Amino acid sequence: MPTLAEAEARRRFAAARVARLATVRPDGRPHIVPIVFALDGDTAYSIADPKPKRGLDLLRHRNIAAHPAVSVLVDEYREPWERIWWVRADGSARVVVSGMERDTALELLRAKYREYAEWTTPFGAATVISVERWSSWEI
Amino acid sequence: MPTLAEAEARRRFAAARVARLATVRPDGRPHIVPIVFALDGDTAYSIADPKPKRGLDLLRHRNIAAHPAVSVLVDEYREPWERIWWVRADGSARVVVSGMERDTALELLRAKYREYAEWTTPFGAATVISVERWSSWEI
Repeated sequence: MPTLAEAEARRRFAAARVARLATVRPDGRPHIVPIVFALDGDTAYSIADPKPKRGLDLLRHRNIAAHPAVSVLVDEYREPWERIWWVRADGSARVVVSGMERDTALELLRAKYREYAEWTTPFGAATVISVERWSSWEI
Repeated sequence: MPTLAEAEARRRFAAARVARLATVRPDGRPHIVPIVFALDGDTAYSIADPKPKRGLDLLRHRNIAAHPAVSVLVDEYREPWERIWWVRADGSARVVVSGMERDTALELLRAKYREYAEWTTPFGAATVISVERWSSWEI
Protein backbone atom coordinates (compact mmCIF):
# COMPACT_ATOMS: atom_id res chain seq x y z
CA MET A 1 0.00 0.00 0.00
CA PRO A 2 1.68 3.25 -1.10
CA THR A 3 2.21 5.62 1.82
CA LEU A 4 3.60 9.11 2.24
CA ALA A 5 6.80 9.92 4.10
CA GLU A 6 5.88 10.90 7.66
CA ALA A 7 7.01 14.53 7.26
CA GLU A 8 4.90 14.90 4.12
CA ALA A 9 1.92 13.22 5.81
CA ARG A 10 2.20 15.62 8.75
CA ARG A 11 2.56 18.61 6.39
CA ARG A 12 -0.59 17.72 4.44
CA PHE A 13 -2.50 17.05 7.64
CA ALA A 14 -1.48 20.39 9.16
CA ALA A 15 -2.46 22.28 5.99
CA ALA A 16 -5.97 20.80 5.80
CA ARG A 17 -8.83 23.12 6.77
CA VAL A 18 -11.12 20.34 8.00
CA ALA A 19 -10.67 16.86 9.46
CA ARG A 20 -12.99 14.15 10.74
CA LEU A 21 -12.71 12.98 14.33
CA ALA A 22 -13.74 9.46 15.29
CA THR A 23 -14.32 8.67 18.95
CA VAL A 24 -15.96 5.77 20.79
CA ARG A 25 -19.17 6.36 22.71
CA PRO A 26 -19.46 5.19 26.31
CA ASP A 27 -21.50 2.19 25.05
CA GLY A 28 -18.76 1.20 22.57
CA ARG A 29 -20.31 2.44 19.32
CA PRO A 30 -18.22 4.72 17.09
CA HIS A 31 -19.02 8.40 16.62
CA ILE A 32 -17.75 10.77 13.93
CA VAL A 33 -17.87 14.53 13.42
CA PRO A 34 -16.07 17.04 11.20
CA ILE A 35 -13.68 19.31 13.09
CA VAL A 36 -11.55 22.33 12.41
CA PHE A 37 -8.21 21.94 14.09
CA ALA A 38 -4.61 23.11 14.35
CA LEU A 39 -1.56 20.86 14.44
CA ASP A 40 1.63 21.63 16.34
CA GLY A 41 4.21 18.86 15.99
CA ASP A 42 2.42 15.70 17.14
CA THR A 43 -0.34 17.52 18.98
CA ALA A 44 -3.67 18.43 17.37
CA TYR A 45 -6.00 20.97 18.93
CA SER A 46 -9.66 21.76 18.46
CA ILE A 47 -12.05 23.79 20.56
CA ALA A 48 -15.74 23.85 21.30
CA ASP A 49 -17.60 26.82 19.86
CA PRO A 50 -18.83 29.55 22.15
CA LYS A 51 -21.91 28.20 23.93
CA PRO A 52 -24.04 29.43 26.80
CA LYS A 53 -23.05 26.30 28.73
CA ARG A 54 -19.35 25.47 28.85
CA GLY A 55 -17.54 22.30 29.81
CA LEU A 56 -18.18 18.72 28.75
CA ASP A 57 -21.44 19.44 26.99
CA LEU A 58 -20.46 17.93 23.64
CA LEU A 59 -20.94 14.23 22.95
CA ARG A 60 -17.35 14.01 21.69
CA HIS A 61 -16.16 15.22 25.12
CA ARG A 62 -18.16 12.60 26.95
CA ASN A 63 -16.85 9.98 24.54
CA ILE A 64 -13.24 11.01 25.18
CA ALA A 65 -13.80 10.97 28.92
CA ALA A 66 -14.96 7.34 28.59
CA HIS A 67 -12.52 6.25 25.85
CA PRO A 68 -9.47 8.50 25.26
CA ALA A 69 -8.40 6.77 22.01
CA VAL A 70 -9.29 8.82 18.91
CA SER A 71 -8.68 8.66 15.17
CA VAL A 72 -8.50 11.79 13.01
CA LEU A 73 -8.62 11.73 9.23
CA VAL A 74 -7.70 14.25 6.57
CA ASP A 75 -8.26 13.32 2.96
CA GLU A 76 -8.41 14.68 -0.55
CA TYR A 77 -10.93 13.12 -2.88
CA ARG A 78 -11.44 13.77 -6.57
CA GLU A 79 -12.63 12.03 -9.70
CA PRO A 80 -11.18 10.43 -11.66
CA TRP A 81 -9.33 8.61 -8.87
CA GLU A 82 -5.90 10.07 -9.41
CA ARG A 83 -3.76 11.92 -6.87
CA ILE A 84 -6.17 11.09 -4.07
CA TRP A 85 -4.78 10.55 -0.61
CA TRP A 86 -5.56 10.40 3.07
CA VAL A 87 -3.58 10.89 6.25
CA ARG A 88 -4.76 9.48 9.55
CA ALA A 89 -3.57 10.46 13.03
CA ASP A 90 -4.26 7.91 15.75
CA GLY A 91 -3.70 8.87 19.32
CA SER A 92 -5.28 9.75 22.61
CA ALA A 93 -7.27 12.81 23.54
CA ARG A 94 -7.97 14.89 26.60
CA VAL A 95 -10.61 17.54 27.13
CA VAL A 96 -9.10 20.67 28.65
CA VAL A 97 -11.57 23.10 30.19
CA SER A 98 -9.12 25.85 31.19
CA GLY A 99 -5.45 26.71 31.61
CA MET A 100 -2.34 27.01 29.50
CA GLU A 101 -3.02 24.16 27.07
CA ARG A 102 -6.44 25.56 26.26
CA ASP A 103 -4.84 28.99 25.73
CA THR A 104 -2.36 27.40 23.30
CA ALA A 105 -5.22 25.73 21.43
CA LEU A 106 -7.07 29.00 21.10
CA GLU A 107 -3.98 30.86 19.93
CA LEU A 108 -3.16 28.28 17.23
CA LEU A 109 -6.77 28.06 16.07
CA ARG A 110 -7.13 31.82 15.88
CA ALA A 111 -3.95 32.00 13.81
CA LYS A 112 -5.34 29.41 11.35
CA TYR A 113 -9.02 30.41 11.12
CA ARG A 114 -10.04 34.01 10.58
CA GLU A 115 -13.51 33.41 12.00
CA TYR A 116 -12.11 32.18 15.30
CA ALA A 117 -9.86 35.26 15.39
CA GLU A 118 -12.88 37.50 15.03
CA TRP A 119 -15.06 35.89 17.70
CA THR A 120 -15.17 37.69 20.99
CA THR A 121 -17.57 35.42 22.90
CA PRO A 122 -15.95 32.84 25.22
CA PHE A 123 -15.05 29.46 23.75
CA GLY A 124 -15.79 26.05 25.23
CA ALA A 125 -13.37 23.30 26.19
CA ALA A 126 -10.35 22.38 24.06
CA THR A 127 -9.69 18.88 22.79
CA VAL A 128 -5.97 18.08 22.89
CA ILE A 129 -4.90 15.05 20.86
CA SER A 130 -1.49 13.44 21.28
CA VAL A 131 -0.77 11.71 17.97
CA GLU A 132 0.90 8.36 18.53
CA ARG A 133 0.84 7.06 14.96
CA TRP A 134 0.66 8.60 11.50
CA SER A 135 -0.77 6.50 8.66
CA SER A 136 -1.29 7.50 5.07
CA TRP A 137 -2.20 6.30 1.63
CA GLU A 138 -2.15 7.78 -1.82
CA ILE A 139 -2.72 6.78 -5.42
CA MET B 1 -28.92 22.56 17.13
CA PRO B 2 -30.33 23.18 13.62
CA THR B 3 -30.94 19.90 11.79
CA LEU B 4 -32.16 18.92 8.35
CA ALA B 5 -35.42 17.14 7.67
CA GLU B 6 -34.69 13.42 7.39
CA ALA B 7 -35.60 13.24 3.69
CA GLU B 8 -33.25 16.13 2.92
CA ALA B 9 -30.49 14.60 5.05
CA ARG B 10 -30.83 11.29 3.20
CA ARG B 11 -30.86 13.09 -0.15
CA ARG B 12 -27.64 14.98 0.58
CA PHE B 13 -25.99 11.85 1.94
CA ALA B 14 -26.93 9.84 -1.16
CA ALA B 15 -25.62 12.54 -3.51
CA ALA B 16 -22.20 12.79 -1.84
CA ARG B 17 -19.28 11.26 -3.75
CA VAL B 18 -17.24 10.42 -0.64
CA ALA B 19 -17.99 9.63 3.00
CA ARG B 20 -15.93 8.75 6.05
CA LEU B 21 -16.51 5.45 7.81
CA ALA B 22 -15.75 5.07 11.51
CA THR B 23 -15.48 1.60 12.97
CA VAL B 24 -14.15 0.21 16.25
CA ARG B 25 -11.04 -1.96 16.22
CA PRO B 26 -11.08 -5.31 18.03
CA ASP B 27 -9.13 -3.65 20.90
CA GLY B 28 -11.75 -0.88 21.26
CA ARG B 29 -9.91 1.99 19.56
CA PRO B 30 -11.70 3.90 16.79
CA HIS B 31 -10.66 3.66 13.14
CA ILE B 32 -11.61 5.93 10.26
CA VAL B 33 -11.23 5.75 6.48
CA PRO B 34 -12.73 7.59 3.51
CA ILE B 35 -15.11 5.46 1.44
CA VAL B 36 -16.99 5.70 -1.79
CA PHE B 37 -20.46 4.32 -1.34
CA ALA B 38 -24.00 4.07 -2.69
CA LEU B 39 -27.17 4.55 -0.68
CA ASP B 40 -30.45 2.73 -1.33
CA GLY B 41 -33.14 3.73 1.17
CA ASP B 42 -31.63 3.07 4.58
CA THR B 43 -28.88 0.79 3.32
CA ALA B 44 -25.41 2.01 2.37
CA TYR B 45 -23.05 -0.13 0.32
CA SER B 46 -19.34 -0.01 -0.30
CA ILE B 47 -16.99 -2.58 -1.76
CA ALA B 48 -13.35 -3.53 -1.43
CA ASP B 49 -11.21 -2.79 -4.45
CA PRO B 50 -9.97 -5.60 -6.63
CA LYS B 51 -7.13 -7.30 -4.77
CA PRO B 52 -5.17 -10.49 -5.31
CA LYS B 53 -6.50 -11.78 -1.99
CA ARG B 54 -10.22 -11.52 -1.41
CA GLY B 55 -12.29 -11.74 1.75
CA LEU B 56 -11.79 -10.08 5.11
CA ASP B 57 -8.37 -8.67 4.29
CA LEU B 58 -9.18 -5.03 5.12
CA LEU B 59 -8.87 -3.73 8.66
CA ARG B 60 -12.36 -2.24 8.41
CA HIS B 61 -13.71 -5.74 7.74
CA ARG B 62 -11.99 -7.20 10.77
CA ASN B 63 -13.30 -4.28 12.84
CA ILE B 64 -16.87 -4.87 11.68
CA ALA B 65 -16.56 -8.58 12.42
CA ALA B 66 -15.60 -7.67 16.00
CA HIS B 67 -17.90 -4.63 16.43
CA PRO B 68 -20.76 -4.28 13.91
CA ALA B 69 -21.70 -0.73 14.96
CA VAL B 70 -20.48 1.89 12.48
CA SER B 71 -20.83 5.63 11.93
CA VAL B 72 -20.69 7.19 8.46
CA LEU B 73 -20.31 10.91 7.85
CA VAL B 74 -20.90 13.12 4.85
CA ASP B 75 -20.15 16.81 5.16
CA GLU B 76 -19.69 20.00 3.21
CA TYR B 77 -17.11 22.43 4.52
CA ARG B 78 -16.31 25.90 3.25
CA GLU B 79 -15.01 29.22 4.49
CA PRO B 80 -16.42 31.51 5.65
CA TRP B 81 -18.54 29.19 7.78
CA GLU B 82 -21.85 29.64 6.03
CA ARG B 83 -24.03 26.96 4.48
CA ILE B 84 -21.89 24.22 5.98
CA TRP B 85 -23.54 20.99 7.02
CA TRP B 86 -23.03 17.37 7.86
CA VAL B 87 -25.18 14.27 7.80
CA ARG B 88 -24.31 11.22 9.86
CA ALA B 89 -25.67 7.70 9.42
CA ASP B 90 -25.32 5.46 12.46
CA GLY B 91 -26.08 1.80 12.11
CA SER B 92 -24.68 -1.67 11.92
CA ALA B 93 -22.59 -3.24 9.22
CA ARG B 94 -21.99 -6.68 7.76
CA VAL B 95 -19.24 -7.82 5.44
CA VAL B 96 -20.67 -9.81 2.52
CA VAL B 97 -18.17 -11.91 0.58
CA SER B 98 -20.53 -13.22 -2.12
CA GLY B 99 -24.17 -13.56 -3.14
CA MET B 100 -27.11 -11.37 -4.02
CA GLU B 101 -26.41 -8.51 -1.60
CA ARG B 102 -22.88 -8.16 -2.89
CA ASP B 103 -24.24 -8.17 -6.46
CA THR B 104 -26.63 -5.35 -5.48
CA ALA B 105 -23.74 -3.39 -3.98
CA LEU B 106 -21.69 -3.75 -7.12
CA GLU B 107 -24.58 -2.76 -9.36
CA LEU B 108 -25.34 0.40 -7.36
CA LEU B 109 -21.69 1.37 -7.09
CA ARG B 110 -21.11 0.85 -10.80
CA ALA B 111 -24.12 3.04 -11.56
CA LYS B 112 -22.72 5.82 -9.34
CA TYR B 113 -18.97 5.67 -10.11
CA ARG B 114 -17.72 5.49 -13.68
CA GLU B 115 -14.40 4.00 -12.60
CA TYR B 116 -16.09 1.06 -10.90
CA ALA B 117 -18.17 0.55 -14.05
CA GLU B 118 -15.01 0.32 -16.12
CA TRP B 119 -13.09 -2.14 -13.92
CA THR B 120 -13.13 -5.70 -15.11
CA THR B 121 -11.01 -7.31 -12.37
CA PRO B 122 -12.92 -9.02 -9.55
CA PHE B 123 -13.90 -6.91 -6.55
CA GLY B 124 -13.44 -7.79 -2.90
CA ALA B 125 -16.09 -8.11 -0.19
CA ALA B 126 -19.00 -5.67 0.13
CA THR B 127 -19.77 -3.75 3.29
CA VAL B 128 -23.53 -3.49 3.84
CA ILE B 129 -24.63 -0.90 6.38
CA SER B 130 -28.14 -0.81 7.81
CA VAL B 131 -28.73 2.77 8.86
CA GLU B 132 -30.62 2.93 12.14
CA ARG B 133 -30.39 6.65 12.80
CA TRP B 134 -29.88 9.77 10.69
CA SER B 135 -28.38 12.85 12.36
CA SER B 136 -27.56 16.17 10.78
CA TRP B 137 -26.48 19.71 11.41
CA GLU B 138 -26.23 22.83 9.34
CA ILE B 139 -25.48 26.51 9.71
